[in-house]
Amino acid sequence: MAERERIARYFAPLAANEPGSFQLTDDAAVLMPPAGQKLVITTDSVIQGIHVLANATPEQFAQKLVRRNLSDLAAMGAKPWRYTLNVHMPHQMSDNWFALFAAALAAEQEEFRMLLAGGDSTSGASAIHVTMTCFGLLNAAPLRRNGAQIGDDLYASGTLGDAAYAHTLLQRNAPVDATLAARYHAPTPRLALGEMLRGVATAAMDISDGLLSDVTQMCAASGCGARIEQAAIPFSNHLKNVAENYRFALSGGDDYELCFAAPVSQREHIVAIAKQLTLPLTRIGSIVAGSNVSVIGTDGKALPITATGWEHR
Amino acid sequence: MAERERIARYFAPLAANEPGSFQLTDDAAVLMPPAGQKLVITTDSVIQGIHVLANATPEQFAQKLVRRNLSDLAAMGAKPWRYTLNVHMPHQMSDNWFALFAAALAAEQEEFRMLLAGGDSTSGASAIHVTMTCFGLLNAAPLRRNGAQIGDDLYASGTLGDAAYAHTLLQRNAPVDATLAARYHAPTPRLALGEMLRGVATAAMDISDGLLSDVTQMCAASGCGARIEQAAIPFSNHLKNVAENYRFALSGGDDYELCFAAPVSQREHIVAIAKQLTLPLTRIGSIVAGSNVSVIGTDGKALPITATGWEHR
Repeated sequence: MAERERIARYFAPLAANEPGSFQLTDDAAVLMPPAGQKLVITTDSVIQGIHVLANATPEQFAQKLVRRNLSDLAAMGAKPWRYTLNVHMPHQMSDNWFALFAAALAAEQEEFRMLLAGGDSTSGASAIHVTMTCFGLLNAAPLRRNGAQIGDDLYASGTLGDAAYAHTLLQRNAPVDATLAARYHAPTPRLALGEMLRGVATAAMDISDGLLSDVTQMCAASGCGARIEQAAIPFSNHLKNVAENYRFALSGGDDYELCFAAPVSQREHIVAIAKQLTLPLTRIGSIVAGSNVSVIGTDGKALPITATGWEHR
Repeated sequence: MAERERIARYFAPLAANEPGSFQLTDDAAVLMPPAGQKLVITTDSVIQGIHVLANATPEQFAQKLVRRNLSDLAAMGAKPWRYTLNVHMPHQMSDNWFALFAAALAAEQEEFRMLLAGGDSTSGASAIHVTMTCFGLLNAAPLRRNGAQIGDDLYASGTLGDAAYAHTLLQRNAPVDATLAARYHAPTPRLALGEMLRGVATAAMDISDGLLSDVTQMCAASGCGARIEQAAIPFSNHLKNVAENYRFALSGGDDYELCFAAPVSQREHIVAIAKQLTLPLTRIGSIVAGSNVSVIGTDGKALPITATGWEHR
């Protein structure tokens, strides 16, 4: 199928409800963000063999792509609105691949209430690269990374390390529980949480590189340090009995949970948010003076780990 | 250099004048388009060996990337405003590559008055892929592809075929005049022309795939056909005496000139625009009934060519 026909058949339906997409038949899209709303823009790619497995299905490409992007909107407290898509493909991809990819995008659009506005596609790439640029809306101040205060509590949503552990098993072709595998293939962007944390959290970001690296980023932006209690790190049942589960949580990536800082005075409020969302929000430590992010083991001593990895000693 | 350091050193300065970029240190950018302006969004990629030569310089990547995108804004009559960037690189790209790429982007930003707002970067790709998503502003109705009327004149800006001819020579390692090579490496987006054609042209699009393919697209969107006079196709001095120069113009790509339709009543106005811009705007034919796009040779007969290529007969 010719590229133009492919766009018309598989991608134009995803843009049908946005008149400014011109059904993907013009040079550019013309969008009019609702009056008074800020536009929150993020972009991320999914490359075959890097962000998904080398043999990833079209659905896995679509889900990882959408959810990586939406996790960034969640971390700013924004709502999804529109997106553009870049698709770089090897020659001779089957029409079936595109049909499945587009069907998966349609399901994601429906779930997260957003519409395709435009894009481009190229054949002849040596691997599949898909890129999304995502436009969210926000009618308030964004959640930022840079407001954590000394004495704040430090929180993480959900459970940590699942995606990295699942990835390790999948790479080894080891058997993986479907729920655990989904934590890697189709992470859940914490959009409702992000919106509810506006005005509550002093700083927030999504956990994409591993807890330690991401907390270190948040602390660097805020000009402070943090102390994480190893015993407080929230694990799913899948990881509870895994040796060195805390390595997956601290240094693995791809969880797309939110970490955030909030004043001690917000504790009850945060318990209420967790209850409302039926999502664990775990106090994993606190914001401290200085610039060091440490992880305190059950013996009260700091673990030999830094944001760039484990220290061998 | 670590990825984060690279972003801070080379890319953050490109975003310094847009406060909502947060110096590329947060999860997303927060932009506030000026009140009442429409947002015109386009996205295009440049892949090593496909859109630029396999040995393209960092400057060539930057220029082709920016100008491909801006040409789409020009075709809608919009002004450049902000952009995001995705950079997928093989491992072990030198810092020098990034320094040169960013310096070239800085020059493009300055020339076209736009600012970086966000992006992402990934190492481990098998070839260099750079993607830009470009946000333009428009305070009027966009130029569209779908308004050409039977009897309208058909125009092309500048000269045609230069980029495809240059590309052919460059691929053969043949000597190429620098001005001609620049037509391939750094095409000129016709931004001022696009703005001046609003309310004048009935349809417009940029010539990226070759005149015949692009006029066919415009006609399909407008529900009409076109008749192009071979003798009227505008050639630069580089192509005037090249055998089969019209093949480069009709079927080559990458010129990034504009083609447009306008009522006969606008002829004088369009002559005035050409004079003001010191840019040739050549009447190359007319819009006709039906759906066929034909090229009429100097003998009065249609050339054996269709939008998908030359007919061998």
